Amino acid sequence: MSKIAINHPITLGGAEDVQHVLKILERANRIASTSELDELLQGMLDLIIEVCGANMGILYLVDQAAGELIFKVIKGDASIRFPYQKLVGKRISLETGIAGETLKECHPIQVNDDVAHDPRWYPGLAELLPNEIHNALSIPLQVKREPIGVIQIFNYTYSQLELVHLLSDRMASEIDKAMLLQESRLRSSRLETLIANMGQIGSTLDRDQILRLIINYAREMLNAEACSLFLVDEESSDLVLTVASNINVNVSVERMHVPAGKGIIGHVIRHGETILVPNVKRDKRHYTKVDQRSGFTTRSILAVPLVTRTVVLGGERGTSKERIIGGLEAMNKMDGTFNEDDAQLLRSFTTQAATVLEVASLFANANELFLDVIKALTAAIDAKDPYTEGHSQRVCEYSVEIARQIGLPPERIHYIRIGSLFHDVGKIGVPDIILAKAGQLTAYEYSQIKQHPTIGARIMSQVRMMTPEIPALSQHHERLDGSGYPNGLRDNQISLAGQIVAVADVFDAMTSDRPYRRGMPVDEVFNYMQERTGTYFDKACVEALITAYKSGQI
Amino acid sequence: MSKIAINHPITLGGAEDVQHVLKILERANRIASTSELDELLQGMLDLIIEVCGANMGILYLVDQAAGELIFKVIKGDASIRFPYQKLVGKRISLETGIAGETLKECHPIQVNDDVAHDPRWYPGLAELLPNEIHNALSIPLQVKREPIGVIQIFNYTYSQLELVHLLSDRMASEIDKAMLLQESRLRSSRLETLIANMGQIGSTLDRDQILRLIINYAREMLNAEACSLFLVDEESSDLVLTVASNINVNVSVERMHVPAGKGIIGHVIRHGETILVPNVKRDKRHYTKVDQRSGFTTRSILAVPLVTRTVVLGGERGTSKERIIGGLEAMNKMDGTFNEDDAQLLRSFTTQAATVLEVASLFANANELFLDVIKALTAAIDAKDPYTEGHSQRVCEYSVEIARQIGLPPERIHYIRIGSLFHDVGKIGVPDIILAKAGQLTAYEYSQIKQHPTIGARIMSQVRMMTPEIPALSQHHERLDGSGYPNGLRDNQISLAGQIVAVADVFDAMTSDRPYRRGMPVDEVFNYMQERTGTYFDKACVEALITAYKSGQI
Repeated sequence: MSKIAINHPITLGGAEDVQHVLKILERANRIASTSELDELLQGMLDLIIEVCGANMGILYLVDQAAGELIFKVIKGDASIRFPYQKLVGKRISLETGIAGETLKECHPIQVNDDVAHDPRWYPGLAELLPNEIHNALSIPLQVKREPIGVIQIFNYTYSQLELVHLLSDRMASEIDKAMLLQESRLRSSRLETLIANMGQIGSTLDRDQILRLIINYAREMLNAEACSLFLVDEESSDLVLTVASNINVNVSVERMHVPAGKGIIGHVIRHGETILVPNVKRDKRHYTKVDQRSGFTTRSILAVPLVTRTVVLGGERGTSKERIIGGLEAMNKMDGTFNEDDAQLLRSFTTQAATVLEVASLFANANELFLDVIKALTAAIDAKDPYTEGHSQRVCEYSVEIARQIGLPPERIHYIRIGSLFHDVGKIGVPDIILAKAGQLTAYEYSQIKQHPTIGARIMSQVRMMTPEIPALSQHHERLDGSGYPNGLRDNQISLAGQIVAVADVFDAMTSDRPYRRGMPVDEVFNYMQERTGTYFDKACVEALITAYKSGQI
Repeated sequence: MSKIAINHPITLGGAEDVQHVLKILERANRIASTSELDELLQGMLDLIIEVCGANMGILYLVDQAAGELIFKVIKGDASIRFPYQKLVGKRISLETGIAGETLKECHPIQVNDDVAHDPRWYPGLAELLPNEIHNALSIPLQVKREPIGVIQIFNYTYSQLELVHLLSDRMASEIDKAMLLQESRLRSSRLETLIANMGQIGSTLDRDQILRLIINYAREMLNAEACSLFLVDEESSDLVLTVASNINVNVSVERMHVPAGKGIIGHVIRHGETILVPNVKRDKRHYTKVDQRSGFTTRSILAVPLVTRTVVLGGERGTSKERIIGGLEAMNKMDGTFNEDDAQLLRSFTTQAATVLEVASLFANANELFLDVIKALTAAIDAKDPYTEGHSQRVCEYSVEIARQIGLPPERIHYIRIGSLFHDVGKIGVPDIILAKAGQLTAYEYSQIKQHPTIGARIMSQVRMMTPEIPALSQHHERLDGSGYPNGLRDNQISLAGQIVAVADVFDAMTSDRPYRRGMPVDEVFNYMQERTGTYFDKACVEALITAYKSGQI
């Protein structure tokens, strides 16, 4: 191939040239009508190569954060035998080669001859393409004086500099707009994901599930290799690594403690600040023990605090104050480096996450308090008869297992739990001399005792929301054949809750010691109950009890 | 002013023309380097007017949804005396005038002479500018064959059609991109607002406050004139207009009922669909009674259902199912018409809102259940002594009022409420013969009675979360001078909760009838207590009680 030496730009002139220019610019308009960055870049580079009668061109884009130029698009005709597409995506430092020189000068560089031996020529390219490149035109791409890339054209026939300038200016502006649009759309789509994720974590009150969702979503949204969530331990003030999510390894670091104030996460939690560390090796605050345990290599970190507006209980109107309950760390962004957009996204997410966690805790505490208070009170009632100590608590455990065994849904199990705990609450209304009597009861005393289901139901009848639990209180001494008390109900007249608690109650009564006899062996009790399924007890409930017992649930 | 008649476009030619074209296109590049739509439009229209040697130009944009053309930018030089800027923002139908014709033809229209008498000429303009306009060039702006606007140039000297085409094509593509970017950025900013609002409504558990926040935020985000939130009444299935927000009037329509299935909101709630009605007059489903009541004129409606993933209680792991609890209507968008973007935004918001409402309800229900159960149980304990019926409930009311009066924060009032309700719970452990005894108690019996604070504290000691309430249980019979029981505590050894409940307890005991005496008049009781402030009772607590009594709080 002979060298083409062009020392002076060809000047455009004549009516034909005007038509030529207008045609080229029309084509530029068509190419630019796309809003897809990649399509735009390909089309514009093709056009500029053609305008110059060249056989190859490279478009580099600037990655300012990394201080690098990226080989973004490379085009060549059939005469280029080197598999240049391999270079696409490669990065070189901003100062390298003729491209770097072009950016530094902010001016086109034209090498008309023997480019491969030009001292500025990037050695990597020179090695690869020694015989294929003869001349080069290198043009900076700028938007509002900011460099955004470089275009290089090789083996040109006409260096129509003015037209090429016009086209490359246009290209720079189009790239800028396409990138702005791309960024803005990416931003919208990330915000939409954030909104969906916020909704998801708010739709459950299960704290463990919320914690898992938080770190899994955080990792996905940030495209991070791993995420860890730390909560402040109220007693020790340590930071406890509560949940971790890692795309690659699965070594358990959960429950690891980090002393208060230690590490980047400690700093974040103490000061309520967001910290973005591109390279942890250069940050002395990094706490290395977690990596040592897991074998994970942390390279970069984005850490934000979990700030909750604590909802204050019992206020006439919800009042709130801010409190830092922990922090979240994302490690090793997989497609670039963590940036301010990532930080904002993560902060929005953790603000919501902290609130959701707080509500879940409040709710769990309220439920725990309720159940504990009921347990304490029913234990106090049981204690009036020394022989029934712990009875309500045991009947509750048995009833819940029977309900589970027969496959009741969680909300029904919930009211069976409360109803069974309360089943003997009516004993408050029975004179305690009778309850505590060690000897045989008289008929009158027994009739008093038999009032307790009715009294219990009456006590709780004022609590409208306890309605589903009432049958467990009022019917746990009824029998399917109508021989029970207080109302002699039969079969379907007795609710499932009543039948379940009846079975649990008899089982506990017969297996426990009583004033007038010792507790019976379990097998005998089961025989007794099985003989009476259909007459006293519901068959399914008795079988569920036996299954639960034999499988060790009871 | 003489007419300028140009019958043939001037053809470009000669080296000078090429330079001219390149210069103009360079200027176009500079103008297009902005991403601000308005700046872009102004600059491009100026350039095209100049290229044609014209003295006026109009840029119209198409509003496809409304079927209209908008006078977006008008430019004229000093020779135009008509105040044309008045036309900016005016809308004409898509079929009107030469602009409409240009769009219909999809081709430039050139009127070289006497434009004002052209039958296609928009009469509105013709009247305004009879003597100022002589010739006109009208060019369609299209992007991917979709019409987006029209450019009109008046009183041109050169109709450099090829160049003008090039520029107007460029302009169309730049407008398209600028609008896409503007839309995308607007979208991001609305999503950010949505995220902030979602966070806000989730940070309280107060249902009324949540409801207000929901409609206020919804109205703001959609720029609607009014918003209404309907909830389904579980008993009647009616839709209850629960909260309304209106930027202009403030007539109360809250608590109005709409029968199930009626109106657009009824349809939305029944079928779970989003409905967008641009003109309610044309929609028979519109339910007019709310407008009749408020005097509001609904023009357009965007209505979405409130779908909650009901969190099921008591599950090992939160389970959930979807349920429609109501709907939200936005009325009369103030800056255009409701569109699919608005609908999506509102749906995202109401999904979160429904979840937050559900959690708040669950929480309120759990707390109500807890308090009601305690009340029922303490009432049952009080009932063992016929003379103390209702005692615990009254002591609770008095204690809470004293606490409010001395300015305790809501969370401390919360535990004083529970502690005072429970203050006599220890009576479960006192033989009921002694509790119910009508005559004078023996010393032994009295010593048994005096056990109740200790027994009460012991019963609740197992409930870790009840710790703050324990002093109200164990110390309500202590006296500041150490003369109380069970532990003879003094001054600061007695907690504030203990001192408050002590005052409330004595007040109720002395004003109620007892087996051995009738209740004392309130004034005498106050005298008795005031004489003993500092020895028996805390002065601030006694004064708080008296103030609360005198202001009618008790």
